[in-house]
Amino acid sequence: MQIVIDRHSKIPIYRQIVDRIREQIVGGMLPEGFRLPPERRLAEALGVNRSTVLTAYRELKAEGLLHAHVGRGTSVHAPVPATRPPAGTGGVPWRQLFREGGHHVQDPVVRDLLELTERRDVVSLAIGLPAPELLPLHLLGTIFDTLVEEAGPQMLLHCPTEGHTPLRETLTRWLATRGIACSVPEVLVLSGSQQGLDLMVRALVDPGDLVVVEEPTYVGILPVLRAAQARVLAVPVDHDGMRTDVLEAILERHRPKLIYTLPTFQNPSGVEMSLTRRKELLELSARTQVPILEDDPYSELCYDGSPLPSLKALDSTGHVVYLSTLSKVLFPGMRLGFLVGPRPLIRRLALLKQGIDLHSSSVGQRLLDRFIRDGHYEPYLATLRTAYAERRDTMDQALSDGEVSGLAWTKPRGGFYFWCRLPREVERSRLLNEAADAGVAYLPGDACFAEPPADAFVRLNFSYSSPERIRDGVVRFLESVHRAARAQRTQAADRVGMKPVV
Amino acid sequence: MQIVIDRHSKIPIYRQIVDRIREQIVGGMLPEGFRLPPERRLAEALGVNRSTVLTAYRELKAEGLLHAHVGRGTSVHAPVPATRPPAGTGGVPWRQLFREGGHHVQDPVVRDLLELTERRDVVSLAIGLPAPELLPLHLLGTIFDTLVEEAGPQMLLHCPTEGHTPLRETLTRWLATRGIACSVPEVLVLSGSQQGLDLMVRALVDPGDLVVVEEPTYVGILPVLRAAQARVLAVPVDHDGMRTDVLEAILERHRPKLIYTLPTFQNPSGVEMSLTRRKELLELSARTQVPILEDDPYSELCYDGSPLPSLKALDSTGHVVYLSTLSKVLFPGMRLGFLVGPRPLIRRLALLKQGIDLHSSSVGQRLLDRFIRDGHYEPYLATLRTAYAERRDTMDQALSDGEVSGLAWTKPRGGFYFWCRLPREVERSRLLNEAADAGVAYLPGDACFAEPPADAFVRLNFSYSSPERIRDGVVRFLESVHRAARAQRTQAADRVGMKPVV
Repeated sequence: MQIVIDRHSKIPIYRQIVDRIREQIVGGMLPEGFRLPPERRLAEALGVNRSTVLTAYRELKAEGLLHAHVGRGTSVHAPVPATRPPAGTGGVPWRQLFREGGHHVQDPVVRDLLELTERRDVVSLAIGLPAPELLPLHLLGTIFDTLVEEAGPQMLLHCPTEGHTPLRETLTRWLATRGIACSVPEVLVLSGSQQGLDLMVRALVDPGDLVVVEEPTYVGILPVLRAAQARVLAVPVDHDGMRTDVLEAILERHRPKLIYTLPTFQNPSGVEMSLTRRKELLELSARTQVPILEDDPYSELCYDGSPLPSLKALDSTGHVVYLSTLSKVLFPGMRLGFLVGPRPLIRRLALLKQGIDLHSSSVGQRLLDRFIRDGHYEPYLATLRTAYAERRDTMDQALSDGEVSGLAWTKPRGGFYFWCRLPREVERSRLLNEAADAGVAYLPGDACFAEPPADAFVRLNFSYSSPERIRDGVVRFLESVHRAARAQRTQAADRVGMKPVV
Repeated sequence: MQIVIDRHSKIPIYRQIVDRIREQIVGGMLPEGFRLPPERRLAEALGVNRSTVLTAYRELKAEGLLHAHVGRGTSVHAPVPATRPPAGTGGVPWRQLFREGGHHVQDPVVRDLLELTERRDVVSLAIGLPAPELLPLHLLGTIFDTLVEEAGPQMLLHCPTEGHTPLRETLTRWLATRGIACSVPEVLVLSGSQQGLDLMVRALVDPGDLVVVEEPTYVGILPVLRAAQARVLAVPVDHDGMRTDVLEAILERHRPKLIYTLPTFQNPSGVEMSLTRRKELLELSARTQVPILEDDPYSELCYDGSPLPSLKALDSTGHVVYLSTLSKVLFPGMRLGFLVGPRPLIRRLALLKQGIDLHSSSVGQRLLDRFIRDGHYEPYLATLRTAYAERRDTMDQALSDGEVSGLAWTKPRGGFYFWCRLPREVERSRLLNEAADAGVAYLPGDACFAEPPADAFVRLNFSYSSPERIRDGVVRFLESVHRAARAQRTQAADRVGMKPVV
């Protein structure tokens, strides 16, 4: 976005800003969804008052060219170009055509976060990405060249829906080293582990069916369940993981289709389910015949000792379906995951997958296969563990240094996230605004609950940014918490007619 | 599969075959789904009678270690390994848990075809793949290296759900050269064009909703519609494409959610919808407000002159949603497609896609983007057109040379396929068996119909194999037709107590 202000012009500055932005929107230089800088930042850049930018943005909103979401800033709402049919010629009323179930798919929070990570002025503690500078990029380039020589054009052609067979063999051997015994026909390669959630729900869940999730839970499961019109039963997570006593009570009254859990270094809470709970959970599942979907993207990233065995490794009755990915470690953008389950299930999921995307990227599968088989995986993982442990410690220290009273968190033993409970007086939407202004992004905890919780939480990621950026980001974040709390106290004081006590 | 026969042993030969195959299945050397050679072929290889192999296979079937499908040969049905829970310990009754809608997803024909193309002894005229030896593999290797240098680790990270923005810009410019005016927010990048079918149906179709398809239609749309529990209205295709008079009659009585058409070099029929029909179709859609999903993977591959303009290019009222892919030209295994439609639809589809696979492969998108932007696409396409035109002419000539009476086909102007009507006396399942024995694979026409048609058709692909293989494959295919017809005549003659007239 380019704005040049003419200070000698008779046209008011706010109007000049309006005109320049409008030109760029109508001219197509600022596309639909383009996020404008926060008012304060643009004001600083142009050397004008914040209120001037505020007025300009307000005017553009009134014109319908911008829209604002609390906490997500202001973005372009571009007009339909002239080539589209004008009103009255019978354009398709798309919104009326969308199907019933589809109306529940409305939460754009993850998509917004994906966009945010592309902005350089924002310290992103929001999204769960690996450290870009540590990715084995040149190694992958070399493997690509090797594949071109060895596999030839086959690498660009189709592969079976279940996955490239050598990769499935490699995964089987790799899983064995993690205590999971399975054979090739029990492994399904996925286009990212998100696809595993979608496939499982599509295979099992009819509208109105019950599904157990943790509370909090992985943010990406909720839209899938909403789209399927599932009824969600939320079981709270404490320091030992999912509360099996609550689950047991639920299973006495209901017969859900599935128990979804992320037991190791949970996203978002960082909690590692205790061994006792793991066994209780398995026992409950076997007794009630309700299968478990174990999502396990983080157990490789344990920074103190070894992780507990997965539910799948402990499972002697075949009730656990295991979902994982190496995306969190290797290359999230390649979209590869895998699922381990009994053959009738794999066959059903493969038939569904065939209608969805035929198969996952052959090239990506071959790259991953060679990366593991040529022995690059374990050394790379060791590098990651060292680097992420440092980042985790940095974030822990920075949170402590801030000395914000009422802010609570636990240092996780593995994974990607700190889960912080906010001080009582901090209002959630106010914090989002303050943080956006301060140039720091986090995941609002509410996104991880089926129903908004009483306490407010945030999830902070420590894998993506350098230790310096993390420290900077945490400082910005804690300042935002401070400001939000102060503003809240001021407002509360105003309301009862008192001066704030600072 | 390795079988050594001891001719001096007292153990009957059929039993030796049974024992060797059983050992290899139980030992895991022959995995689930492994396709055994046709009886005749194995008999030849071992130098035994066909009936010996037949007996051995029958025994293994009785033991539950093999299963046979008419026309799809015999494959391994491996026993559950000992690590799985034995019966009675409360294993999950998966088949009972599968959801209602899921029961309709049963057709494994495409998956079987994917597997078949991996077998070297079979001439595959079945699947729609580009010529492997013409793929620009080394060029892609070079582009990968360039991306490593230029984009760095970003190429492995996430991108927006709607697609890598530079690729969307590139596609927009490319579409403009094909007469389709659209802006970036109207383009959604897909994980293969199959995903476009799935997303559209998920966004629009509730159980019981009506969807119009062509008859015959693309084989991959039918399982998607079945899974969504849509009711299918089939409109016949003649030499000018979809019969708009039939469609009009349907639209007078019904209000379908969508009209699905593949108007240019249709898969499977090869038919190019005439300009008159295109205009009639657009007029019907605009008048009745039923949107069109135009699937257009083949218009780039026109071998005589230029293709007719797409429906989307002719669309003045915004009723056409355009779906395409460069997979048929560049790299099917990378799974990339794209869809062009109005913004409210793109937004809805992107929200659905977010829950399905978050986004399509970043690496693949960047490779495709650079391939087009660096000017490699048009020269590569020219090479393909020349090569495929030759293959098409070869197949046409080989079909003519066979002089099989009652076999009818039209030489297509573009695309990948010949669509042949079989002689009346050829029984479909018998032909499948004969062709499997002869080592040639085709797509049975029935797969392209919602309801089995009166006439029998086959689809033959001419892009994948070399001209020599095509000629060989057509000869094998025509021999199978001959044999099937003769066997049918013999049977008919037997039935009325007459000697066959040969």
